[in-house]
Amino acid sequence: MDKLKAAVLGATGMVGQRLVKLLADHPRFELEVLAASSRSAGKKYSEAVHWCIEGEVPENAAEMTVVEARLEDVKRGGSVDLVFSALPSEIAREVEAEFARDGIPVISDASAYRMEEDVPILIGEVNPDHLKLVKEQRRRGWRSFIVTSPNCTSNAMILALKPLLDVYGIRSVIVSTMQALSGAGWTGVPSMAITDNIIPYIRNEEEKVEREALKILGKLEGSRIAPADIRISASCHRVNVLEGHLEAVFVELAREAEPEEVAETMRRFRGRPQELKLPTAPENPIIVRSEPDRPQPRLDRCAGNGMSVVVGRIRRDPVLRNGIKFLVLGHNTIRGAAGNAVLNAELAEAEGYL
Amino acid sequence: MDKLKAAVLGATGMVGQRLVKLLADHPRFELEVLAASSRSAGKKYSEAVHWCIEGEVPENAAEMTVVEARLEDVKRGGSVDLVFSALPSEIAREVEAEFARDGIPVISDASAYRMEEDVPILIGEVNPDHLKLVKEQRRRGWRSFIVTSPNCTSNAMILALKPLLDVYGIRSVIVSTMQALSGAGWTGVPSMAITDNIIPYIRNEEEKVEREALKILGKLEGSRIAPADIRISASCHRVNVLEGHLEAVFVELAREAEPEEVAETMRRFRGRPQELKLPTAPENPIIVRSEPDRPQPRLDRCAGNGMSVVVGRIRRDPVLRNGIKFLVLGHNTIRGAAGNAVLNAELAEAEGYL
Amino acid sequence: MDKLKAAVLGATGMVGQRLVKLLADHPRFELEVLAASSRSAGKKYSEAVHWCIEGEVPENAAEMTVVEARLEDVKRGGSVDLVFSALPSEIAREVEAEFARDGIPVISDASAYRMEEDVPILIGEVNPDHLKLVKEQRRRGWRSFIVTSPNCTSNAMILALKPLLDVYGIRSVIVSTMQALSGAGWTGVPSMAITDNIIPYIRNEEEKVEREALKILGKLEGSRIAPADIRISASCHRVNVLEGHLEAVFVELAREAEPEEVAETMRRFRGRPQELKLPTAPENPIIVRSEPDRPQPRLDRCAGNGMSVVVGRIRRDPVLRNGIKFLVLGHNTIRGAAGNAVLNAELAEAEGYL
Amino acid sequence: MDKLKAAVLGATGMVGQRLVKLLADHPRFELEVLAASSRSAGKKYSEAVHWCIEGEVPENAAEMTVVEARLEDVKRGGSVDLVFSALPSEIAREVEAEFARDGIPVISDASAYRMEEDVPILIGEVNPDHLKLVKEQRRRGWRSFIVTSPNCTSNAMILALKPLLDVYGIRSVIVSTMQALSGAGWTGVPSMAITDNIIPYIRNEEEKVEREALKILGKLEGSRIAPADIRISASCHRVNVLEGHLEAVFVELAREAEPEEVAETMRRFRGRPQELKLPTAPENPIIVRSEPDRPQPRLDRCAGNGMSVVVGRIRRDPVLRNGIKFLVLGHNTIRGAAGNAVLNAELAEAEGYL
Repeated sequence: MDKLKAAVLGATGMVGQRLVKLLADHPRFELEVLAASSRSAGKKYSEAVHWCIEGEVPENAAEMTVVEARLEDVKRGGSVDLVFSALPSEIAREVEAEFARDGIPVISDASAYRMEEDVPILIGEVNPDHLKLVKEQRRRGWRSFIVTSPNCTSNAMILALKPLLDVYGIRSVIVSTMQALSGAGWTGVPSMAITDNIIPYIRNEEEKVEREALKILGKLEGSRIAPADIRISASCHRVNVLEGHLEAVFVELAREAEPEEVAETMRRFRGRPQELKLPTAPENPIIVRSEPDRPQPRLDRCAGNGMSVVVGRIRRDPVLRNGIKFLVLGHNTIRGAAGNAVLNAELAEAEGYL
Repeated sequence: MDKLKAAVLGATGMVGQRLVKLLADHPRFELEVLAASSRSAGKKYSEAVHWCIEGEVPENAAEMTVVEARLEDVKRGGSVDLVFSALPSEIAREVEAEFARDGIPVISDASAYRMEEDVPILIGEVNPDHLKLVKEQRRRGWRSFIVTSPNCTSNAMILALKPLLDVYGIRSVIVSTMQALSGAGWTGVPSMAITDNIIPYIRNEEEKVEREALKILGKLEGSRIAPADIRISASCHRVNVLEGHLEAVFVELAREAEPEEVAETMRRFRGRPQELKLPTAPENPIIVRSEPDRPQPRLDRCAGNGMSVVVGRIRRDPVLRNGIKFLVLGHNTIRGAAGNAVLNAELAEAEGYL
Repeated sequence: MDKLKAAVLGATGMVGQRLVKLLADHPRFELEVLAASSRSAGKKYSEAVHWCIEGEVPENAAEMTVVEARLEDVKRGGSVDLVFSALPSEIAREVEAEFARDGIPVISDASAYRMEEDVPILIGEVNPDHLKLVKEQRRRGWRSFIVTSPNCTSNAMILALKPLLDVYGIRSVIVSTMQALSGAGWTGVPSMAITDNIIPYIRNEEEKVEREALKILGKLEGSRIAPADIRISASCHRVNVLEGHLEAVFVELAREAEPEEVAETMRRFRGRPQELKLPTAPENPIIVRSEPDRPQPRLDRCAGNGMSVVVGRIRRDPVLRNGIKFLVLGHNTIRGAAGNAVLNAELAEAEGYL
Repeated sequence: MDKLKAAVLGATGMVGQRLVKLLADHPRFELEVLAASSRSAGKKYSEAVHWCIEGEVPENAAEMTVVEARLEDVKRGGSVDLVFSALPSEIAREVEAEFARDGIPVISDASAYRMEEDVPILIGEVNPDHLKLVKEQRRRGWRSFIVTSPNCTSNAMILALKPLLDVYGIRSVIVSTMQALSGAGWTGVPSMAITDNIIPYIRNEEEKVEREALKILGKLEGSRIAPADIRISASCHRVNVLEGHLEAVFVELAREAEPEEVAETMRRFRGRPQELKLPTAPENPIIVRSEPDRPQPRLDRCAGNGMSVVVGRIRRDPVLRNGIKFLVLGHNTIRGAAGNAVLNAELAEAEGYL
């Protein structure tokens, strides 16, 4: 079976680089076009990109000529079956729609369409059925569709919450984050700003965390998603760590549960990607560690090739009713972005949407 | 009026150094004896100490000969009116009692006696009346007494909570901390452990935070303290910052309050040290900043000479009833330790206890 | 005697902020106008600046309205007797000339005019007589003049070399630097680039270090400077330190000298600013430490209020003839920029040039 | 052909962990015994070790019971054909001799025997013939022998120098290092000491660098090594980087050479391990990068699985005669320690010494 040909939009950014790496040697998708801003267009990818992740620029990508991230340029660059978008949100809105309208499915890491009623925010293990929602996008006059991934901070938290919601029910969640630098992009956080320091604010982040979870954990009812009935409160902070968002989560369950029971529930959790044995699906979506001082970003972020989230320190919370508190760590540019998108594309293909 | 002569026990450690610095040029206290472990005893202070705070070893301390931190050695070193203790807890228990028994007041930063029924954990602005409790220590056969300071993490949080408790009442508190390296001492956290990393665990810290606040915010009723009726849940984490603990605090108030109102309540807060114009008392115990991205440890930890705590991002919390969330930053070795102890000594003197 | 009124050009940058701080409470100069890019013009200084040094924006500066850094705007802003320029080099070339032509002396930290034949690069302790060179600038049709400061890396090295040149003579110098982040400005080095890393390259830096020293250590002969006859080789590297450039220096002296003798020579070194007791002159231009592990940037950069350079580990070099090697540390934005400029202005005033 | 059974002495330290990882899945050697201090003896390796390198403790090592690092305990632990030693030097002296005396070859990363006349310091690509020297150790009454690896800092520098010595000759070398934290072991450098800082001193390091190179680059003449006739001067500094020593090297060649020529000479360099296709030999011992800002520790330290050194910025040095300067980076715990030892063992086996 031939591989599907893929374009990466925003290929030179941090998430774009991760997409290029994940797709460089993928069993189902093939890198066909790399697109970025007009500043990069026309250059060889290896020259346009400030490659900053482990290893070298993948060989098949290095020599490709970057095109501008617009429908016509991408199509001139090659015949593509789908696009992965890691575009800045302000650009994503228009460009992603162009592709969807033209019949090319868009697997997006941008936030532009996340909160649109007819666009799913998809985590393969959490809400695979929301994929059906894409049919509603035809009303927009689009011949294909957009599927989005959650914000990187939401992603890790929601994966950890999903089995708790299923087994015990969840009333409310308080989360305090310690987020990595890569989440802000290569130049997002000056070293002068963060050395010996913390920045206790990330624009729009708390709003995203508080909002996206309700949609993702919501139920698809016909042509719309009924949001989950959970109250969420977030406090988001940037710390001096390269990759891996660590989050302290306090959960009010609907019924009592022992910490050990919660750990076991998380450990046993599997989803549709594991069922379908999708290539990028981690064996364990949630790894629960029992050491008192884990998860740690540098040591645990690459668990499951960066596709597992790592949970630790599950214990009772004395404030919330049926309260449980724990830490969860997710690799923000893999599980929290590029990896999730690739998994979404694999799921979409396996379910016949591509 | 002559200055009181003071010994510093544990003078070579991080908190000990801060004590030496604060007392080097103090209007009411005079450095008389510097004591540390037997390893340092006999050396000049400037040679025994691995000085690691701003500036040089204060001149009057540099040439002093360190003695061992035991009653007899300290007394042989000089006639002292009070001792400041920054001893490790396991040693503090015995040594501090020796001094109190002998009639020398102990102003302690150690945790050894904090939870004893007849020993106050004192924050000048919060519970100055708890000082009366020291009289109960006579039953131990002590001719003088021990006063303790709270754990550094508790300190910042409690200062910020006190005006809220007074004005609105508090039902419960959830706190997630991002704590500085100095809290673990000079060799506490290896650089290999924390570079590009977070350690989401500090031994016994959460227990201290959850317990000490109830005592400090409690009411002195005759010869005992009735603990405050508040539920507290803490999650404590070590981050790559030299000094300054930053804490995300979520509070359930007893009645509703607007964030602006809460900010004003905090700004107006003053305590007994301000009333008495104690030398180490900051003009504003709580500084509330209105920028969206403050407080930041490196920029704000030295506010009020490290004796003010800095609060920012006061906003509604959607999970807790009458919920308010904010960030608070405190200099952990000044306000959270040495500075608090010096202020306690000043208060004790002003109130006639020394 | 009235204070001279000063404008700061480039007042919002890292060096500009240091200038504002140093001038906020200066005995001879008074902040009259703050100028920056058109983006900042019209805003209050406290709002235009991303203040990032210790303490708050000085009160007298905070409320000033920033004007654009052009002659006419600055003159409209107030009557100024001199300007301090911390402009980016590409802008400095034109703007600084405007002021000099108009009769307003320019004390510059920019590199634009450094290598011009008739413009001195001035370090008060090293080449105060080079100030005379400014008269030559009249030939340009300028009614006043420009004086520059050296590159921050050159500055520390040259201060340490000057007494060696005077006493022993110098044949050649090899220097390997470990430079601080602030040297690249607030956004110059992304945290993603430098965390757990070193960047072994700083554009044009080695050329500056190799060239400027020859001019500064050269002799004023009539209307020109005869460059010093020294060979210099630099290797410049950026490390993860906020402030303070540390440099490993290997020197070939013209005659043999014991390390202890070299140390003593450096310790005794004083210059014209010390003679004149200029307000910003440090008591000791060079502090020599005898501990085996000093100087260290965080501990030593503020020595002499950031105006002293700190030397340590003076020892024989087995490769170079009469070889001596040592480390020197200089505060790059104070001694290496703003502080040096203020000292230059003080010197110019004391010598009757203002 | 059966694998040789190996013990690792000092298996819980930083270099010991690297040895365990490299040997966990090695084609010629098999982990048989893990030995460490008495504190670890008796524990499962996974519990005794503070595992701090990428990934988890290798499965075959995790369950092994650690024994004390003494001959009798190791022999009781299993029948071993060779031992890898990552012992602290003060212990290594006695323990390594015990094994050699007993007939078990010792491949050591410790410094204890490096400067002994009859013990080679071996870098497979540089001085493979020095292996012959081990026969001289029989005079000690030893039935087997000790082979050592160079100090981690020397290693990277010498690999880069070797082809220059062969092709152009070398008169002298000045090197200024920026060394990683792991070189000091897990607890060697407190985070309080190095955050926002540099420590410009590493005990005994400069002496080692200046001395070892002469031996390694020397010629085996009969039963002794005639040291290379090169003058070397080192200045060694610890910076805030996890792994990877970066070194600025200034070389006086015996005859002139263009930088491009030097680069080509380095690129073409191959040694005996490449000839023999030893399993741990990197394809290119020296990788020369042409970007202006490389090598960088975080990006380049794992080149060639950490066994290549990476050179960049080759340019003329204006001070030294026929001077060339460049930067070289080596992974200090792989190429500079554990990996070099494993390669030495592979070489020894291939050459019939095991």
